[in-house]
Amino acid sequence: MRRIDLNEAGRFLRENDCFLILMHGSPDGDTLGCGYALCGALQQIGKKAKAVCPDPIPKKFDYVYREIEQQEFEPQTIVTVDVADAKLLYGMRELGEKAALCIDHHVSNTEYAERLLLAPEYAAACELMFELLSSMPEVKITSCIADCLYTGIATDSGCFKYSNTSPQTHVYAAELMKLGADIVPINYAMFDMKSQGRLKLEQTVLSKIRYYDAGKIAVIDVTQELIDSIEGIDSEDVGALAAIPRQIEGVDIGICIKEKKPGLFKASLRSSENADVAAIAQQFGGGGHARAAGCAFECSLEEAERQLVWACAKALERS
Amino acid sequence: MRRIDLNEAGRFLRENDCFLILMHGSPDGDTLGCGYALCGALQQIGKKAKAVCPDPIPKKFDYVYREIEQQEFEPQTIVTVDVADAKLLYGMRELGEKAALCIDHHVSNTEYAERLLLAPEYAAACELMFELLSSMPEVKITSCIADCLYTGIATDSGCFKYSNTSPQTHVYAAELMKLGADIVPINYAMFDMKSQGRLKLEQTVLSKIRYYDAGKIAVIDVTQELIDSIEGIDSEDVGALAAIPRQIEGVDIGICIKEKKPGLFKASLRSSENADVAAIAQQFGGGGHARAAGCAFECSLEEAERQLVWACAKALERS
Repeated sequence: MRRIDLNEAGRFLRENDCFLILMHGSPDGDTLGCGYALCGALQQIGKKAKAVCPDPIPKKFDYVYREIEQQEFEPQTIVTVDVADAKLLYGMRELGEKAALCIDHHVSNTEYAERLLLAPEYAAACELMFELLSSMPEVKITSCIADCLYTGIATDSGCFKYSNTSPQTHVYAAELMKLGADIVPINYAMFDMKSQGRLKLEQTVLSKIRYYDAGKIAVIDVTQELIDSIEGIDSEDVGALAAIPRQIEGVDIGICIKEKKPGLFKASLRSSENADVAAIAQQFGGGGHARAAGCAFECSLEEAERQLVWACAKALERS
Repeated sequence: MRRIDLNEAGRFLRENDCFLILMHGSPDGDTLGCGYALCGALQQIGKKAKAVCPDPIPKKFDYVYREIEQQEFEPQTIVTVDVADAKLLYGMRELGEKAALCIDHHVSNTEYAERLLLAPEYAAACELMFELLSSMPEVKITSCIADCLYTGIATDSGCFKYSNTSPQTHVYAAELMKLGADIVPINYAMFDMKSQGRLKLEQTVLSKIRYYDAGKIAVIDVTQELIDSIEGIDSEDVGALAAIPRQIEGVDIGICIKEKKPGLFKASLRSSENADVAAIAQQFGGGGHARAAGCAFECSLEEAERQLVWACAKALERS
């Protein structure tokens, strides 16, 4: 692995062709925005390029690939975007391990790619992609590319609300608006719109919310049976549940425990400034950021909840 | 009324003293941010100043006046901020009509003040206040003033999601962050935090949501009995329900019917681009904007719902 800068990354893109761009599984706005912005830019400068994701892309992101041309070719150059670890590529992990370039913003990047363009202090990989594409005079940032980059920046910064939001995040959003990013429909689709199924899912899950430690810890869970019983929900609807418990007044740590299969649970942790949930997740073999982390449990739901709540209460006691 | 520019407004503030700053009733982040930013800046340059509002200030805005000194003096100079019409000052209307200066961003400003500093294309009056204070070299924009100005900008732009958000909105947010605006707690308090009571209220109300017209119309209702049964909810929690039905995928008109007293109901209507709810509300003696309107019914809940849904379905049929 070799760390490279924007100049070298631009040169690398110019000097290579037949790009396979890999976006992480359970795709979010940042990996998709980054992947399709890069794909569009490469096609624009005459390269062959396609962006792929191991998971289906949620319908609400349709607009990010509206100007992408379907190209058939034998991939020669693998680039990963917003992929901190090749294992986040799920079934495409082996392809990821052969990546010639990784463009990322996760401080936890495992340095699996041959070259790494990393900006660990950026809110979104799309901020870095915007700099990269802006540094290439032959690339024109179209309104579609601006939509892609804005999507990543808005979603990864929690609509400019999270602590990763920097003055630069706002300045880049301003520049992307000037380049034609159509922010109203994007933000409606990303942040406000909910399907009937999602509403029902939230309803059911929240009706069973548990509070611990004088309301400082809140836990919800979602079983496979529940997910199967509600029509029209997707993985993103389920993923979005993770943020809810922490939004309740007085809650320092919000926990969402999701059943992956019988006996296997994945917990998502969100926290206020009063707790480092990455450290908590690490105790259970997981990881993440200080304010958003995750880990897995092979036991019953009740046992997973008990262990997590205990660790969280300990962490809050020390804070 | 005379329109003035930033220079003249700055000169006016310098040349006068004993300022009474009036903020509009049912105060929001923009009027409060604007009022307390101005008050803090005036006190900083040695003027006497106080900011007042005809209504109590919701607790979540406590931080905006944390550096304001309580000063006793006889007001000489009245300034209104973010007040489009003196009648929005409720009981303080007569004071507002004597305003020497109005600083505002509403295109509908009724020009009631002697001098008017107006930027009708700005998302927030706080954008204009930021320009005014920045144009006065003797004013230092402290982190507290930056918090105030950021609050107005973030809230009036719907956290940078509404169509009034401009590139400038983002650029000013970036500058205010550099000046010390502490965005994470502000945004959490403004946009994400919900009390346990509010969550329970939403839960209960949404569990009874009704869809009509193939999901294009969604109706919720909230009775006085329900409001009384949940601890710790306030009028803002109840008011916030109105936005929810319209956020559901496929819903063109969202209706929230609130019981005011037995036999008297108030309906809030929200719509997509596909319907003009002001026109619908007018049929029932109400009014409002095309995308947000309201009207009242003196009948049973079921009858109010039946009449409204019928009128909405008719309106959608024509669209």
